[in-house]
Amino acid sequence: VRASMDQPAAASQVMGFPHLPPPHRDLMVDLLSTIEARLGPHLLPSVVPSDVLSFQGQGGASRGALDIRSGGQDSSVDFILESWLHCKVPSGSLNITTLFAFLKASTDAPHLLMEFIQGSPTSLILFMDLLPRKDLVLHPDYLDEFYQNTNVDKVRQELENVPQVLPYRSSSLYIRSVLSPTAVAVQINCGAEGESAMEEIMRVQLDSVAKEIMRIWLDKCARSIKQLGETERADLLRRDTLIKNKTVEIDLAANLPRLFGPDVANRVVEAIQKAYRI
Amino acid sequence: VRASMDQPAAASQVMGFPHLPPPHRDLMVDLLSTIEARLGPHLLPSVVPSDVLSFQGQGGASRGALDIRSGGQDSSVDFILESWLHCKVPSGSLNITTLFAFLKASTDAPHLLMEFIQGSPTSLILFMDLLPRKDLVLHPDYLDEFYQNTNVDKVRQELENVPQVLPYRSSSLYIRSVLSPTAVAVQINCGAEGESAMEEIMRVQLDSVAKEIMRIWLDKCARSIKQLGETERADLLRRDTLIKNKTVEIDLAANLPRLFGPDVANRVVEAIQKAYRI
Repeated sequence: VRASMDQPAAASQVMGFPHLPPPHRDLMVDLLSTIEARLGPHLLPSVVPSDVLSFQGQGGASRGALDIRSGGQDSSVDFILESWLHCKVPSGSLNITTLFAFLKASTDAPHLLMEFIQGSPTSLILFMDLLPRKDLVLHPDYLDEFYQNTNVDKVRQELENVPQVLPYRSSSLYIRSVLSPTAVAVQINCGAEGESAMEEIMRVQLDSVAKEIMRIWLDKCARSIKQLGETERADLLRRDTLIKNKTVEIDLAANLPRLFGPDVANRVVEAIQKAYRI
Repeated sequence: VRASMDQPAAASQVMGFPHLPPPHRDLMVDLLSTIEARLGPHLLPSVVPSDVLSFQGQGGASRGALDIRSGGQDSSVDFILESWLHCKVPSGSLNITTLFAFLKASTDAPHLLMEFIQGSPTSLILFMDLLPRKDLVLHPDYLDEFYQNTNVDKVRQELENVPQVLPYRSSSLYIRSVLSPTAVAVQINCGAEGESAMEEIMRVQLDSVAKEIMRIWLDKCARSIKQLGETERADLLRRDTLIKNKTVEIDLAANLPRLFGPDVANRVVEAIQKAYRI
């Protein structure tokens, strides 16, 4: 896969995942490869500085990698963010992987969010969602188009039917508000059943559900083009900008300094804000 | 409590609850009495026809009562709907009690929804929420004012910490969208522990949580007055009207005919639509 005929693709700068448990790594590699195969040719090369593409906290106990690529002119993709964080914590290590695909206002189709927060080899919190770009209460047709008719809620149910899987609520009310009514927001606790139970769930059910959600997003959202009116477009951009601002504020500005120190945190947040154009 | 000095209050026409298990009845009587004490004096007498105030299906296996009273000129209440439905079902009897308090556009404060669906003496599905009147993603200040600062999520957590209580999702994606991120949407299953466990939960935890949510709504929402701009007010009314329309469509028009036959169902839905002005 090449970004253009002239240069090798900037793809997968975060793809190594040197610290992830193997099933978590395999899932992420599969997901990023799928995105890459479908959207990579329409993405511009990364302009993220090398000290954000890869970074670490003082002493090296915390490491991370983050890449953001913008969509080319012919793409409905605004940007794709891929990242991993790895931190030593008292209980072992914390591994967070994120895939965030944001669309332009050339469509009103939902964005894609996938985040896996593995606190130990036997516990995982995860969010997977098609993020709505409109108030669903005011736009039942939009709810039908992207959530009812795509059957994405059945996919969510499949995962929630696994006995070790429990609903999870973000502590942030804003993050809860941003999620759709079909969002996968769960915790998986394998406790005494141990690592092999978690590996099995990740390799079978989570793998299948994550890929199905990505397939729905790639087929129904990423390729969608819609002529929006002036006001509708302005409303959409205002809402998108708020989501960008608030998620950086809640998710990153609040947590990165603690894990990586203020200097690294600032550098990473600045690179994101630049790519987000906020 | 009187609607005016001239006539006895039309209050509590549904208050008998002849078919409810005692703890369910006690809770509803307490909740409706609290609403009555605080808002009754500012409500107009009911104009719901007597064959909707009390109705039954063919053969009398299904019975129901529904009252709606509008707020007077000096009240920020648009209307208050109180109802109960009782139906014989294969597993015994189904009892649904509803309290729905809708505010006018003289404020943008949330509406109140409380619904208890008791499918058997040992199982209950319940919804309790302050229904947002704005897109929370676009209005983080609104989220802070009515949901963050009121600590209503702590109240929800209290109930969800009870071991027999599990999160519950409405099968309707629209209903899920209408609920706030702090909505209580749970099922309580006491199974083998039997009726006494359910009675205990209803008399202790549910009682306390329901009353606290009602207190927050009465103190922070029902008394709220806010001067809204022309556009803001129009947006609010458009959203409120959609919520009224869709909830009647999803909740009542879909279920009442099955339980009460088409004639009774039509009569009840018409009375609601008239009071809702939709």
